[in-house]
Amino acid sequence: MPDKPLILITNDDSIHAKGLRKLIKLMRKFGDVAVISSEQVMSGMSHAVTIKTPLMPRLIHEEEGFREFLTNGTPVDNVKLGKHALLERKPDLIVSGINHGSNAAINIIYSGTMAAALEGAIDGIPSIGFSLDDYDHDADFNHVDPFVESITEKVLRDGLPDGVCLNVNIPKKSDVPVKGIKVVRQAKARWIEQFDPRTDPFGRTYYWIGGTFVNGDPRKDTDEKALADNFVAVVPVHLDFTANELLKKLEF
Amino acid sequence: MPDKPLILITNDDSIHAKGLRKLIKLMRKFGDVAVISSEQVMSGMSHAVTIKTPLMPRLIHEEEGFREFLTNGTPVDNVKLGKHALLERKPDLIVSGINHGSNAAINIIYSGTMAAALEGAIDGIPSIGFSLDDYDHDADFNHVDPFVESITEKVLRDGLPDGVCLNVNIPKKSDVPVKGIKVVRQAKARWIEQFDPRTDPFGRTYYWIGGTFVNGDPRKDTDEKALADNFVAVVPVHLDFTANELLKKLEF
Repeated sequence: MPDKPLILITNDDSIHAKGLRKLIKLMRKFGDVAVISSEQVMSGMSHAVTIKTPLMPRLIHEEEGFREFLTNGTPVDNVKLGKHALLERKPDLIVSGINHGSNAAINIIYSGTMAAALEGAIDGIPSIGFSLDDYDHDADFNHVDPFVESITEKVLRDGLPDGVCLNVNIPKKSDVPVKGIKVVRQAKARWIEQFDPRTDPFGRTYYWIGGTFVNGDPRKDTDEKALADNFVAVVPVHLDFTANELLKKLEF
Repeated sequence: MPDKPLILITNDDSIHAKGLRKLIKLMRKFGDVAVISSEQVMSGMSHAVTIKTPLMPRLIHEEEGFREFLTNGTPVDNVKLGKHALLERKPDLIVSGINHGSNAAINIIYSGTMAAALEGAIDGIPSIGFSLDDYDHDADFNHVDPFVESITEKVLRDGLPDGVCLNVNIPKKSDVPVKGIKVVRQAKARWIEQFDPRTDPFGRTYYWIGGTFVNGDPRKDTDEKALADNFVAVVPVHLDFTANELLKKLEF
């Protein structure tokens, strides 16, 4: 590794997001930073890749140790662009976020922010997705620094096992200080969808997706429990979706 | 369950795909079928959900035991539409595909077809994603019937454990008959990306995503190995992405 690590930053809330600006500020303490983010909000884009249209990234800012690229891509596209087209070498670290809203529990499967971290792990690059449990566009990120910094420092120093990235969720800012960091598992919690049907000016029915998030997981070592107890939740996440316990049981 | 099971079918190759037509034909033997698929190709859309615009499904065909809805949504949107807006009751089975192209190994993470099956599993509905290891739009599906039928029959009869769906990949049609069905694990195989840079008429650089799929996994019980040996590969897939082996090892 050269003297300074090369850190690739992306997110799914667009290049204009407050959480991204916060992450840039924190990462510049650790190394050279390249931001690759999208003009448009890419929340809920999961691991989508753009294969029907081409990608057109544009360098919009450059100074010593810091570059920003604006793209028309998804978070996963942005990681791929970084790895294979825009950066002169493989990044030493990929960080994604800081997401406006929790990516704990099943939210990981819908999240563009976490997909970017998973994409980094596919290529064996230590990768972290950071999210704040606050969906507000103007969310308060003032309390996150020590947690983002200590986790980043450790991952830069020790790396992560091959095919593993971290899903880090930080409690919303409140009057009570965050208690610390817990390494936990993904809770079995989910959205109970509620579709909102409406009628357009031409008489056609259309729907907005909506819902309520429900945690029915009683276990004490989950990300949802950690957040509820005002801890930062760190879930090590891997790329193997096999339900191993069924390999010997299923027969066709 | 009423006399006839209600089967929801979706895919990511659009409502016009040959693989979808094949799956409809096979599923109508098992029960009442509702197809919810998109006008546009949704390959590579992964678990993306449409939250910035509304969904506008349209019933385009109806006869005894069979309905088709055309939507502007992703495969996951289509499953959600089925569960929460369009169908009078929860489906007994969700099947997705038959995808034109393999969703074995890491392809599962990019696939809209498999995302639809995972979305079904989130709601506790037995769900199967079927894919053919042939990307051709005019791929030959004539050999798939006995495998799709026997797997469907078993899942309809026995169900699947909560939070688990099946990723079924079928070898490409060849002169040699498929040897049978194997229950296997997700191979550690991936894409080596190659970006194709071009210049648009205005002098700007743009990129097409491309790459070569490489299986470096030497294990004998993987989906890639099963396909290579001319077996149908069935991977039980779950929704918990936690790297359990690291829970006790990581510390921050």
